[in-house]
Amino acid sequence: MKQWDSVAIVGVGLIGGSIGLGLRDRGLARQVVGIARREASLRVAKRMGAVTKGTLDLARGVNGAELVVVCTPVARIAADARASAEVCRPGALITDVGSTKAEIVAALDGALSREVRFVGSHPLAGSEKSGPAAAAADLFVDRTVVVTPTRATREEDLASLDAFWTALGARVIRMSPEAHDRALAATSHLPHLAASALAASTPQGDLGLTASGWVDTTRVAAGDPELWQQIFMSNRANVLTALARYEKVLDSLRRCLEQGNKKKLTAILQEGKQKRDALAS
Amino acid sequence: MKQWDSVAIVGVGLIGGSIGLGLRDRGLARQVVGIARREASLRVAKRMGAVTKGTLDLARGVNGAELVVVCTPVARIAADARASAEVCRPGALITDVGSTKAEIVAALDGALSREVRFVGSHPLAGSEKSGPAAAAADLFVDRTVVVTPTRATREEDLASLDAFWTALGARVIRMSPEAHDRALAATSHLPHLAASALAASTPQGDLGLTASGWVDTTRVAAGDPELWQQIFMSNRANVLTALARYEKVLDSLRRCLEQGNKKKLTAILQEGKQKRDALAS
Repeated sequence: MKQWDSVAIVGVGLIGGSIGLGLRDRGLARQVVGIARREASLRVAKRMGAVTKGTLDLARGVNGAELVVVCTPVARIAADARASAEVCRPGALITDVGSTKAEIVAALDGALSREVRFVGSHPLAGSEKSGPAAAAADLFVDRTVVVTPTRATREEDLASLDAFWTALGARVIRMSPEAHDRALAATSHLPHLAASALAASTPQGDLGLTASGWVDTTRVAAGDPELWQQIFMSNRANVLTALARYEKVLDSLRRCLEQGNKKKLTAILQEGKQKRDALAS
Repeated sequence: MKQWDSVAIVGVGLIGGSIGLGLRDRGLARQVVGIARREASLRVAKRMGAVTKGTLDLARGVNGAELVVVCTPVARIAADARASAEVCRPGALITDVGSTKAEIVAALDGALSREVRFVGSHPLAGSEKSGPAAAAADLFVDRTVVVTPTRATREEDLASLDAFWTALGARVIRMSPEAHDRALAATSHLPHLAASALAASTPQGDLGLTASGWVDTTRVAAGDPELWQQIFMSNRANVLTALARYEKVLDSLRRCLEQGNKKKLTAILQEGKQKRDALAS
């Protein structure tokens, strides 16, 4: 397995911290440099062993890295990647871990100077928790990472990213940034929106009567509102399409209830069960 | 702790089987008789030790019981309780475990002959699984059981049910059947409807890109469509009210996305997070 000489992680939260831990646990990188905005994050990341070195200075942090992984919130990724490109070593590869891809890739694809290239990644792993303290070396094990090449992407960079994520335990698949955003609107962004709306619409006085159904269905609503606002805004057209599809099914269910249409109600529940049962967990 | 001489369980699925296991594990009943419609369920219940005796004959099954617990699907509970009342011993107490209460209690309250009384119960415990094979002796431990008295209910019967559920490890609270149904529409029935709609609205081709968010949010959609259709229909007015509240929040979210209103979008997500965070798990 390839050992990386130096990997820079810009933003050492849950995902950045987990990448660092994974790289160090598996002996995949000689040096992992964490770059953060706050000393406190660096302290936690260092104490956990997620980084070998930490700095608040982007230029110093990305300086010697072969690979820069931008793990900041979606709305900051393009700017952070561009800033990294200006101070990293010529020919370095930059990737990210953002939950949306089209907007970010469009801003960076083929747009960096000095032979620096950007290729987008999105690990389908995470948690409603955030921050480096929640990081885990095995966060990516058996998870899917979507890598989103374009026509400008070099095959060698794709191979590098494949090797990087695979070494962390993930399965890598390739999709266009646009196809990624369309699919993830349905499988990740809409579920989050639906869960948040469900939690928000529950009357305060009824919260004492929730059981496992409510608890499971609303789990992701505990996620960081600011991070998710950025994800929704970055993928709003696709989220709106997925939401319209969802509202249509809810509307059908409402009419079944109003009209006492048991047969159709059961059929819609059956369709949901069938799709749910297609998954093992 | 009181030992029951004989408890009859009508319907030995997940809940009925778990009651039997709990009673036997804790030495709470000398005899637990299971009544089912199918030999296969009785065989599983007997093999698991959930019942001491099993029969397909309701009259023989409830014959000697002090307490009859009706654990059949919501649409069958009133009829099964009425049939049990006609063949059980005079003065016996009947309860149920249905997810809705108003319709069932209205059909049975003070309506049984020979001093047989019905008081409704609803253990907020369960699973997307069903059948006696999924039963567990500790299913009710630290769970809430709502008992729904009316003006016709005797205090001694409430005390009996309190003792029964408490002995199985649950916390008992009392609510009117109507207040129960209003609250559970928001905390259990709507979440199920929302989860089923979410699963049903996910395009088949995108299912490979689901991650933990989708998995958690849709978990309950794996539940039995026929059982849930009955629950929704039995509580349709309250479910429609809760659904309207939900659709209103989704509509606000949709407008935030259309108008790029980040501030309001974040505020709604924040409200959902606040309600979700109020729970520990």
